[in-house]
Amino acid sequence: MLPDQPYSGLLTDLYELTMAAGYVQNGFDARATFEVFVRSLPRRRNYLVAAGLEQALDFLGNVRFSSEDISYLRALPFFRHVHSKFFDYLSQFQFKGDVWALPEGTIFFPGEPLLRVTAPIAEAQLVETTLLSILHFQTLIASKAARITAAAAGRTVVEFGSRRAHGVEAGVLAARAAFIAGCEGTSNTYAGRRFGIPVYGTQAHSWIMAHEDETEAFRDFLNVFPEQSTLLVDTYDVHAAIEKMIALGRKPGGVRLDSGDVLADSQWVRARLDRDGWNDVQIFASGELDEDRIEDLLRSGARLDAFGVGTALSTSADSPNLGVIYKLVEVEVGDTVRSAAKFSQEKITYPGRKQVFRFTGDEGKFSSDIVGLHGESFPGAEPLLVPVMREGRRLAASGKDLAATMQEARSRCLACRSRMPGRILALQPAEPPFPVRHSAQLERLHDQVRQTVAKTARIG
Amino acid sequence: MLPDQPYSGLLTDLYELTMAAGYVQNGFDARATFEVFVRSLPRRRNYLVAAGLEQALDFLGNVRFSSEDISYLRALPFFRHVHSKFFDYLSQFQFKGDVWALPEGTIFFPGEPLLRVTAPIAEAQLVETTLLSILHFQTLIASKAARITAAAAGRTVVEFGSRRAHGVEAGVLAARAAFIAGCEGTSNTYAGRRFGIPVYGTQAHSWIMAHEDETEAFRDFLNVFPEQSTLLVDTYDVHAAIEKMIALGRKPGGVRLDSGDVLADSQWVRARLDRDGWNDVQIFASGELDEDRIEDLLRSGARLDAFGVGTALSTSADSPNLGVIYKLVEVEVGDTVRSAAKFSQEKITYPGRKQVFRFTGDEGKFSSDIVGLHGESFPGAEPLLVPVMREGRRLAASGKDLAATMQEARSRCLACRSRMPGRILALQPAEPPFPVRHSAQLERLHDQVRQTVAKTARIG
Repeated sequence: MLPDQPYSGLLTDLYELTMAAGYVQNGFDARATFEVFVRSLPRRRNYLVAAGLEQALDFLGNVRFSSEDISYLRALPFFRHVHSKFFDYLSQFQFKGDVWALPEGTIFFPGEPLLRVTAPIAEAQLVETTLLSILHFQTLIASKAARITAAAAGRTVVEFGSRRAHGVEAGVLAARAAFIAGCEGTSNTYAGRRFGIPVYGTQAHSWIMAHEDETEAFRDFLNVFPEQSTLLVDTYDVHAAIEKMIALGRKPGGVRLDSGDVLADSQWVRARLDRDGWNDVQIFASGELDEDRIEDLLRSGARLDAFGVGTALSTSADSPNLGVIYKLVEVEVGDTVRSAAKFSQEKITYPGRKQVFRFTGDEGKFSSDIVGLHGESFPGAEPLLVPVMREGRRLAASGKDLAATMQEARSRCLACRSRMPGRILALQPAEPPFPVRHSAQLERLHDQVRQTVAKTARIG
Repeated sequence: MLPDQPYSGLLTDLYELTMAAGYVQNGFDARATFEVFVRSLPRRRNYLVAAGLEQALDFLGNVRFSSEDISYLRALPFFRHVHSKFFDYLSQFQFKGDVWALPEGTIFFPGEPLLRVTAPIAEAQLVETTLLSILHFQTLIASKAARITAAAAGRTVVEFGSRRAHGVEAGVLAARAAFIAGCEGTSNTYAGRRFGIPVYGTQAHSWIMAHEDETEAFRDFLNVFPEQSTLLVDTYDVHAAIEKMIALGRKPGGVRLDSGDVLADSQWVRARLDRDGWNDVQIFASGELDEDRIEDLLRSGARLDAFGVGTALSTSADSPNLGVIYKLVEVEVGDTVRSAAKFSQEKITYPGRKQVFRFTGDEGKFSSDIVGLHGESFPGAEPLLVPVMREGRRLAASGKDLAATMQEARSRCLACRSRMPGRILALQPAEPPFPVRHSAQLERLHDQVRQTVAKTARIG
């Protein structure tokens, strides 16, 4: 399994290391600020949910270069002219920067910083790839899970996607991100143990198929798990399976439909169970579900109490990535603070250390955001980025145990959702989208930097 | 970083554990065979590339349940009636099954087993989720990388996708899978160290932006990395950057275009460099590339020597998952061998232990496959599944070092590609697709099982 050194500083793109070598060897030790943000919303999406900060801070707090890591770099032909100074730097390396971030579970929008790092430039640069990788994935999954749980309209949604998540780590962290954004639990047992997420699961088709007949398969399972078992009833024929279960006379906690005409089957099963007074037996649907399918089933009158959502959730199948980037926004050389931005063609970024201000309108609902400069303030608006690490040390508020941090993130996400306008939470593109503006100060700084950069590009 | 116990038996869906508990407690210790296969090809795809076996066998060889894992399960309310016998079983658990598989790098098709496990049923069931997760991800990425490298038509492709891969582990393993399927290297430094994959990368836009001007940024970099550096020339204005580089008078190994009109810029840059006799300076393209964009650029006459492909590759963006499944195909109870299959609605599977036979036609090109039963043979056809683990022990052939195993897989993939008909390797859907048939024996077994199952479903 990999990585077998989960805090290795080599878990990054090579160019972070070449740039760091350049900064160290050239004695360029300016303090730099980088911000993580998402360029634009995926098609049909109205918002994003911040997640992954816990693992990002864990990485920052523990990243090191082992002597094997350093020997490997030294031996690369491309590094042959790099001075020992840099390798010494790596052997002592610890991340000592300051970090501000959106707390996990916060709903946010493109162009709003999700996290901000301020550190000596080599240090801030070295952690780019890993930070992006960690924040991107959980934010991706939490953003998808929020849609899926919204579509389920209060019914239970369980994350079932480990087998097709992008590897073992992705399965565990998808479970975490999905729980933060409103899922009730996961099938991933390790995620259950590690984070205290409720775990779900009873049998697969193989259990039924391994037995001579279905009745025997049901009975043998209920003998071991007599309480709250969910029986899988679609291996051969749903109606026949339900009749066998009723004939067996042992009421399960629920039944699961994993294929076929789930709408019609759910209605038939509900009626059949109710006829025998088994009104409290839940009907659980799974099998190639996503938010659209769930919304469609419920609108069509499906009688379903819970959903197991796998692949579509754990791979965010309709949008398996976000345009997340890590951009230099400020460099302090001595007493001079220089703001940086990128203006090349379509890829424009805004300079300066930023803060996000969220305004509340009628009935306590969020009404708009302003992306301004750090240090600005707007009456009645809540600043969303909070300090989470100072000089490489995690601040008290972010140092709780893993289960507590995650539960808090989940509560924050649910509270944040309850205050978002209904059109933003809908599956279809919101018209108008949630209003996000830049502050006048940020726009002025942007214009100044643009003029300087235009001069630099021509003359430099 | 997670999982912090990479071989924990809990890295699986809870239902694998409930079923295993059921088998152990009921004394049902039949020997079972499960097969991993992919249901169907993603849209526009013609073939798949097997990858991930090395990590799958590593997991099988090392999976264990710690006392903490077992305490966690014991404490779950749902497990309250499970006997100690099962927890004792877990504390002793080691995978002791037999495994056959397609060697990594093999091109294969839907319905062809990628891997087959034969073991006592509880044991074979417990490893399902983790096996699927490991094999699915690398097969997904290798299958995508094969298309991207085919589109590059012999030019260098480097995997650049760590930052948007689904987590840190996914970044490392995407690099491995991409290399197997023909990429020349990766930006992921850890993957370079761990597997011996060539690593690539020089500077990001932040390097240029952190300097007062571009010339200074280029010079400062070349001072540290004087040989074979690739300079990023699109931060402000490509033409101006190239002129500054030439004026500086220090020839780099290459230049990189990451945005803008790559087609026009590449042509202008090539002509400008050649005018000064810098014909051997390579032009490297990156930035939102995929196989279609690469094919389109080259067809349009772009002057590009190499490609860095990120997000589209590391997330297999057009198809971020495959319908990979693990199906029970045979159960041996005492002296009776019972073949199993699933016939519910659209999700039909074939029974019996299978083998894939590949036929060669004209000019040494592969002409068709037959999926038959293990033990069948077809003159002139090569059986593709080979034994890789016996009674839980890896067979010699699969026990090489990580770099050697991966290089061998890459050679196999390239050799396999060179023997595939051209229409199969094209980006567009092949007409006709690669022919895959079932053997007559397999069809007969399928019919027999279907009749038995139909009876079971009605009567059982």
